[in-house]
Amino acid sequence: MSDKKIPYKIYLEEDEMPKQWYNVRADMKKKPEPLLNPATLKPMTLEELSKVFCEDLVKQELDDTTPYIDIPDEIREFYRMYRPSPLVRAYCLEKKLGTPAKIYYKFEGNNTSGSHKLNSAIAQAYYAKKQGLKGVTTETGAGQWGTALSMACSYFDLDCNVYMVKCSYEQKPFRREVMRTYGAKVTPSPSETTEIGRKILAEHPGTTGSLGCAISEAVETAVSREGYRYVLGSVLSQVLLHQTVIGLETKTALDKYDIKPDIIIGCAGGGSNLGGLISPFVGEMLRGEKNYQIIAVEPASCPSLTRGTYAYDFCDTGKVCPLQKMYTLGCDFIPSANHAGGLRYHGMSGVLSELYDQGLMEARSVVQTDVFAAAEEFARVEGILPAPESSHAIKVALDEAKKCIETGEEKTIVFGLTGTGYFDMFAYEKFHDGEMSDYIPTDEELAKYRDTLPKVNK
Amino acid sequence: MSDKKIPYKIYLEEDEMPKQWYNVRADMKKKPEPLLNPATLKPMTLEELSKVFCEDLVKQELDDTTPYIDIPDEIREFYRMYRPSPLVRAYCLEKKLGTPAKIYYKFEGNNTSGSHKLNSAIAQAYYAKKQGLKGVTTETGAGQWGTALSMACSYFDLDCNVYMVKCSYEQKPFRREVMRTYGAKVTPSPSETTEIGRKILAEHPGTTGSLGCAISEAVETAVSREGYRYVLGSVLSQVLLHQTVIGLETKTALDKYDIKPDIIIGCAGGGSNLGGLISPFVGEMLRGEKNYQIIAVEPASCPSLTRGTYAYDFCDTGKVCPLQKMYTLGCDFIPSANHAGGLRYHGMSGVLSELYDQGLMEARSVVQTDVFAAAEEFARVEGILPAPESSHAIKVALDEAKKCIETGEEKTIVFGLTGTGYFDMFAYEKFHDGEMSDYIPTDEELAKYRDTLPKVNK
Repeated sequence: MSDKKIPYKIYLEEDEMPKQWYNVRADMKKKPEPLLNPATLKPMTLEELSKVFCEDLVKQELDDTTPYIDIPDEIREFYRMYRPSPLVRAYCLEKKLGTPAKIYYKFEGNNTSGSHKLNSAIAQAYYAKKQGLKGVTTETGAGQWGTALSMACSYFDLDCNVYMVKCSYEQKPFRREVMRTYGAKVTPSPSETTEIGRKILAEHPGTTGSLGCAISEAVETAVSREGYRYVLGSVLSQVLLHQTVIGLETKTALDKYDIKPDIIIGCAGGGSNLGGLISPFVGEMLRGEKNYQIIAVEPASCPSLTRGTYAYDFCDTGKVCPLQKMYTLGCDFIPSANHAGGLRYHGMSGVLSELYDQGLMEARSVVQTDVFAAAEEFARVEGILPAPESSHAIKVALDEAKKCIETGEEKTIVFGLTGTGYFDMFAYEKFHDGEMSDYIPTDEELAKYRDTLPKVNK
Repeated sequence: MSDKKIPYKIYLEEDEMPKQWYNVRADMKKKPEPLLNPATLKPMTLEELSKVFCEDLVKQELDDTTPYIDIPDEIREFYRMYRPSPLVRAYCLEKKLGTPAKIYYKFEGNNTSGSHKLNSAIAQAYYAKKQGLKGVTTETGAGQWGTALSMACSYFDLDCNVYMVKCSYEQKPFRREVMRTYGAKVTPSPSETTEIGRKILAEHPGTTGSLGCAISEAVETAVSREGYRYVLGSVLSQVLLHQTVIGLETKTALDKYDIKPDIIIGCAGGGSNLGGLISPFVGEMLRGEKNYQIIAVEPASCPSLTRGTYAYDFCDTGKVCPLQKMYTLGCDFIPSANHAGGLRYHGMSGVLSELYDQGLMEARSVVQTDVFAAAEEFARVEGILPAPESSHAIKVALDEAKKCIETGEEKTIVFGLTGTGYFDMFAYEKFHDGEMSDYIPTDEELAKYRDTLPKVNK
């Protein structure tokens, strides 16, 4: 540790911002397994994937050997509008806890999308524009990804079609209006605009939709329209790649002040933010240079890492996307109504799954009432109102800092604070009113879904 | 202009942050008129004011001679959690407009309260704590002030009682929940908890309340309880003083890059943010050192500067606060349902009123559909989703930048972006759906309220 006084917020200069993303797969001896075509069970080719996704993004998806990939100037220009994001020293939290631990968090919520999602949205929009496309389609559940993509498309003057799960469309009108402010066309799903939507509406009149259905509609729209492609906000390796700006900035900021973290913590839904945060640190571990304790935190209601199976599965509940080898609860698993919408995903990024399987990362699951209690404890001293997703990381960071009080260890803890909770106040209200419950699936329930994993695994 | 490349966001170092607030009244030859006791029509004394307000704050209120007032360490420590705020060069906006103008904005929305209100809330909470008080009371309309005060009180472990206008309490449940997250007690006003509340409820059963009524309840609670004082989020000179951190940081950032602004623009409701932004620049004008064009922007629906009278009036519609000489529409004036809740105030800060009267500042009024159109234009290229209040300044900044396209002038425009619009999406929705209307009061209407100004003016 240097003698330099560490400020409350470490901001990098613009010229210290990353000029390349870091592709951690290049440093992995055992790579994540390839995506499979569910029909042929053979690895997906560039040609096959390019029908659905933008070509440059497919190249990034398939590239597991190039360690550094240049960030195009147009994307770096956009990054400069809201990045570098601050690495905050939680002095007030440390004081309140009375812990000898040193706590830092990388705060990705200081942009209108309210989360880290913008880091990949702008990249995906850029490559769509570069390819000469008219627009992109996507789905959104809680709405963070849809918001980020709307902002990115507005910037590059691309048409943006968002299929929003109908119950969210109705319950989160504010999210919908933010997307409309950025010019996106937001359609409640299921809708009459697609074949699959009409079919579902005919079979289940009055349904409020699901993420799986919204994905199916977005993919159908993309492949059936000239000049459109489908984009996805997490899970894929390309998304994790773009999110490495988080980890690279974090590392530069820490290095600038000679700080070496002992523990790095992040919440994990699809895994892109955590993967982005830890990639440069895991790279050091893979190259045998340094060692860190890395902790993924997931909701006890959707415990893909802690209680799932490492197997090939569909990335989507609609079963239209390729098969990916990952820790999964089974793509038919429907998580209970946990308010951390962004963590309600049955599987986990293939890269993170492989790192977890190799023992480079551990995982913990936490119940949501504990998460909201931690969120409130954090908010009251650090000021920031955290998103429920991000608060999973806060919960474990507090746990670790409290352990240090007992042991007297001066551990340095870094966690990712992925976003703000402005659009999650219904959940906070339930928590304040004591109406929030914790649901943990039974072993029997999980076994039921595990039995439906695709046959390729057998 | 120096050759130094100007970054997208100018962040000051922590040691460049202001250590003192700047009291612009000290440099004014003709000072704002003193507050008057409405019963005696004599200037309010320290003793009289200290029954309602914290003593140190009253001293600041009455001090019009000390140019610089130290910011206590405890407050500076809190400031470091969310300040310095960035001064942003709007490169993307300039490019989109094709203007030769150089546009900068000081962004105060990067904190959970979502606005500049926190700058004064933390100061007021600190002095309350220092005085050994148990807690403070206040009212809130749109909710920004209440949120900021909740955060500040939570930090200093003070009891915080917020009277929230009942219709807002019901229509803005998210705002209410943010305050509860920070431990505030939020009471819909009128309530059964005060004498005045019970009286109003008896006379007007089913009323949804008003800001005037909420102020009355907050003041009654403060003066009738041991260890409590009342705090206010705008209008008063002490609030304007605290908000000078905005202008001081802005000036330091501009000076660092040898930038001299030609035009400085801010929205004006009670006037504290604009006053805070312009104080150091006005100081230079008062001392004859430099000259700037300063523009206050107000809603056409509530045009206190552009169509009001410079006269003594009550600061509050409840007529329980002292009389202040200010530009006012009459304290009984009820603005139409303009969604920029923070600008729906019948009067204007006494300091700003005096500066306006001396010709140091001009004022413009704008209609809200134009304001929302400007907000959307801004959001789509600069990313940030602005609050309706702040967007009044954006509208005039865009007007001025567009003028430069015609004239070819390379003017430097600086405006204050006071907050974010996350909690204003109902208003954005109305705008998107074409359901927003503009209301401009008639001369007859304004004359009616002008005739009710207190007799002291005659």
